[in-house]
Amino acid sequence: MHKKPQILQRHLVAQSRLFRVESLELRFSNGVERTYERLMPGGSGAVMLVALLDNDTIALIREYGGGIEDYTLTLPKGAIDLGESLREACNRELQEEIGYGAREFIHLKKLSLSPSYMSGGIDVVVARDLYESKLEGDEPEPLELVPWKLNNLHELYSRADCTEGRAIAALALAQEFLAGRFDGEVLG
Amino acid sequence: MHKKPQILQRHLVAQSRLFRVESLELRFSNGVERTYERLMPGGSGAVMLVALLDNDTIALIREYGGGIEDYTLTLPKGAIDLGESLREACNRELQEEIGYGAREFIHLKKLSLSPSYMSGGIDVVVARDLYESKLEGDEPEPLELVPWKLNNLHELYSRADCTEGRAIAALALAQEFLAGRFDGEVLG
Repeated sequence: MHKKPQILQRHLVAQSRLFRVESLELRFSNGVERTYERLMPGGSGAVMLVALLDNDTIALIREYGGGIEDYTLTLPKGAIDLGESLREACNRELQEEIGYGAREFIHLKKLSLSPSYMSGGIDVVVARDLYESKLEGDEPEPLELVPWKLNNLHELYSRADCTEGRAIAALALAQEFLAGRFDGEVLG
Repeated sequence: MHKKPQILQRHLVAQSRLFRVESLELRFSNGVERTYERLMPGGSGAVMLVALLDNDTIALIREYGGGIEDYTLTLPKGAIDLGESLREACNRELQEEIGYGAREFIHLKKLSLSPSYMSGGIDVVVARDLYESKLEGDEPEPLELVPWKLNNLHELYSRADCTEGRAIAALALAQEFLAGRFDGEVLG
């Protein structure tokens, strides 16, 4: 049953400034045919950062989310610019969003948003050994930095303004990494 | 800074069978104006289930994801049908996807996929006190049920075929709930 379906046809069915929708005609190994639609990412990927302000404290940001039309408490994140390495993107986003650079970056995992209908993903990276440094980003207003204790994540998860699945997943992965149960890869 | 931006204008910029893209003209409280795009959900929402096969074991499924063009190990999930309650949707999806119903459903949280550019979300629900019962779903091929020990989630997270951020987030919330550090709401 793990023989992948055959892709009979694919074509672009809708497009906007940020989004492209592709239609996939599939034939599963049992002969069943289906038409799937999926969202194609633009650009070169994205990063989400679990930045350790000290051994017990991570950096959250409070940011307006156009999707939910409200402010949300989440992790620093952003798109990888064309030609930028993953490490460069991480260190730029950190400086733009929380006013810190970092000397060590450890890649944990590329997360998918919805494997069913979205391609692409976001790379989750732990940042350690921080130093103060500010870069101007493209944010419409300054982001608020909210330090949060790692031993108090359950309280964060209970908050109505903490809703982003990817951020909760990134924090869970970081906890496993910090507990020595999950291997990361240092970005050189 | 937490005064929400004013929405000056909104309009539909692209549409396909499954996706609708809306453009938002925003004016932030500091006067900066920006155009955001976001994905609008179709339908009545979606559920993701952490089903306890016993006190130590949850139900994973192996399913083809059109978005990533590969099989993935994730949690049972699906759309809420029109007119269906959250509890009804949960019990239908469970029976369709893993061949079990449940007598108890506890709602943990509505997760957003990307607050920046997606509206809508998915309700995370714990299912307990299971009984065998199979319903025919609309899957193109049968899903494989993969029991997984709760004390071994770090190994799941390390697998290349476990990538879905929402599922990892749902499991992290369920762990906090089962540890008594996160409150859920029983669905009646």
